[in-house]
Amino acid sequence: MKKTRLCDLLGIEYPIIQGGMVWIANAELAAAVSNAGGLGLISPNAGMSPDGDQVENLKKQIEVAKSLTSKPFGVNLPIMNNPQIEALVDVCIEAKVKVAVTAAGNPALYTARFKEAGIKILHLVAAVRHAQSAEKRGVDAVIAEGYEAGGHNGLDELTTMTLVPQVADAISIPVVAAGGIADARGIVAALALGAEGVQMGTRFVATLECAAHQNFKDAVIKASDTDTAITGRKIGPTRILKNEIATKLLEMEAAGASAQELQTFIGGGRSRRGQFEGDLVNGEAYCGSIAGMIKEIKSVAEVINDIVKSYDKVVAELK
Amino acid sequence: MKKTRLCDLLGIEYPIIQGGMVWIANAELAAAVSNAGGLGLISPNAGMSPDGDQVENLKKQIEVAKSLTSKPFGVNLPIMNNPQIEALVDVCIEAKVKVAVTAAGNPALYTARFKEAGIKILHLVAAVRHAQSAEKRGVDAVIAEGYEAGGHNGLDELTTMTLVPQVADAISIPVVAAGGIADARGIVAALALGAEGVQMGTRFVATLECAAHQNFKDAVIKASDTDTAITGRKIGPTRILKNEIATKLLEMEAAGASAQELQTFIGGGRSRRGQFEGDLVNGEAYCGSIAGMIKEIKSVAEVINDIVKSYDKVVAELK
Repeated sequence: MKKTRLCDLLGIEYPIIQGGMVWIANAELAAAVSNAGGLGLISPNAGMSPDGDQVENLKKQIEVAKSLTSKPFGVNLPIMNNPQIEALVDVCIEAKVKVAVTAAGNPALYTARFKEAGIKILHLVAAVRHAQSAEKRGVDAVIAEGYEAGGHNGLDELTTMTLVPQVADAISIPVVAAGGIADARGIVAALALGAEGVQMGTRFVATLECAAHQNFKDAVIKASDTDTAITGRKIGPTRILKNEIATKLLEMEAAGASAQELQTFIGGGRSRRGQFEGDLVNGEAYCGSIAGMIKEIKSVAEVINDIVKSYDKVVAELK
Repeated sequence: MKKTRLCDLLGIEYPIIQGGMVWIANAELAAAVSNAGGLGLISPNAGMSPDGDQVENLKKQIEVAKSLTSKPFGVNLPIMNNPQIEALVDVCIEAKVKVAVTAAGNPALYTARFKEAGIKILHLVAAVRHAQSAEKRGVDAVIAEGYEAGGHNGLDELTTMTLVPQVADAISIPVVAAGGIADARGIVAALALGAEGVQMGTRFVATLECAAHQNFKDAVIKASDTDTAITGRKIGPTRILKNEIATKLLEMEAAGASAQELQTFIGGGRSRRGQFEGDLVNGEAYCGSIAGMIKEIKSVAEVINDIVKSYDKVVAELK
C-alpha cells in the first residue's frame, strides 16, 4: 500500500484513520486501529454515561489506549456546542496525545496551542473555502468529508468524489478523504482523486473492538444501499440509519417544520441511545451510506489487513 | 488507458460516454466525442425550438451525426413524461443507431425491441435495486449515476462513491459511473470502484462543440465547488447552477411548499431557457457539482486527449 505524506506526518504505516465517532470510538477501538498500522481516534464521550464528565472520561480513555498501544493515536474534538472544549484541549496537551482532529468550528482557535505542544492537528472540512482557511491557520492536514458520510455533515452537500479533487487542487497540505470508503476500492479511488489518506467510520462500527451496541453493528451489516438518510437540514444535517425517527423528521422537514420544532422533536441523547444503547427505534444511529457494502463484523486487524492485501490488486486492475 | 468490457460492447476506444444532455447534446457534440474515441450521445430535443417536434428533430440530428462520424454514437431517451417516446424509439431503430440509453422509467419497455434491432441498450440507475432490475430485463450495461450529477437525480441520494461499488457487487454486466467525473483522476477513481467506464456531462458542456449557450459554458468554468444545488426534491430532484430560481425553490421547499406549488412556480421551459438561451436568471442550467473543477472551455478532442494522456500517470502515482 502506498506510503503518503500522511504516513510520515502521523508516524503510521498505512494512511488509514479511524473516525472518532461520538459515544462509540473508545480506547480499545483506537488502540486496535493504531496497532494494526492506522491511526485510531478516541471520542471524549466514548462509553460515557449520559451524566458523565467528558473531561474525566477522556483522561481515562487516553490512559487505557496508552496501556494498549505504543503507537500514535489521536482524539476527535468537535468544537461547536461543546462547553468543555477548552478543558478537553488541555487534557490532550497534558497527556501528550500525538494527534488532534478538530471539526465543526474555527480551526484558528486551538491550532497554535496544539502545534506548540508538538501535537499534529487535522481539521475536518466540507468545502474548498474551509480547507483553504484551515491551511492558512496552520493545520497539518485536512479531512475532506463528503455527503455520504455518517453523522454530522456539511451544509454544501459536496460528495467525496467532487470534494476531494477540488480540495486537493486548492491547498498544498495533505488531504484525507472521508465519506463512502469501506474497502480497498474506496481507498484507491480516494488516492486517485488526490487524497493522501482516508478516514473510515462506519466500517469500524462493524468491528469486534468498537463500543457500538450489537444492535447497531448488526444493523450496519444488514443495511442496504438506501438505508441511510440525511435528516435535520435546518438544524445541522446528519446522516443516520433510516428508522421511525428518521421518517418522522423527514416528514416534518417536507411539511416545513421550523428549526425549533425539529430540535424539540429530537430532544437530547438520541445518538447515545441509538449507537451505544442499541435502541434503534427511538435512538439515532449515525451511519454512512456505504453501510450497504459492509457485510461482516470483523476484528479491526482483519479490516485493515484485508484492505492492505487488496490494495495492490485493485491498482493492478486499472491497467 | 484501460480497455474494458464497455469498449468491446460499444465498439469504442476509450470507456468514456458523453451524457445526452437535454437541449444541448447535439449531433456536433456527439460526433466529436465519438471521433475522439468515446461514445457521443444525442438528445432528441437538442437545439430544437420550444414548439419543435422531437421526432423530426432527432431524425435530423442523427443524419448530421452520421455525416460527421463513421464511429458509433447513441441517443439518450428519458422515458418518463415523454409522450413521444414510442416514436423516438422507432426513429432510433429505423436509423440503426448503435446505442440507446434509457432513463427515468421501466427498462422492460423497450429493451427487447432494441436488442432485436441489434442496438446496445444502457439503462441509467441510481440504486442497487434498479440496477438488478435492469440486468434482469436484459440491458447490456447500466449507468450508475450519483447525487453529484447535474440535472435529474435519483430519489435515494446515493453518491458515485457509494453507488458504484455496491452496484458493481450486485450485477455482472458492465457498470458505467456517472456524476462528479471530469478528469483522469475521476476516471481512475471510478474504475477502482468497479466501474468499467464513465459518463461525463458537465465537462462536455464546457466544450467548443456543445450547443450550450456561451453564458452557460462561462458559468461552468467560473463556478466554485458550492455553486450547484439539488432543487425540487418533491417533484423530481434536479441539480442546477445556483441562481435566483434555485434560491427561491429552496426557500419554498424549506417552508414546506407542496409539489403543486413548486411545479406551478417552475412552470415549463426553464431548462431550455437556461442552457440553450443562456438566461441564467430566469432559466435553469443543469450542472454537476464537479463544475468547480472545470476551468477551461476546450475542444472535445482536447478534453478526451488530456484525460487519456493523464490516465497512466494517475495510476502510476497509486504505487
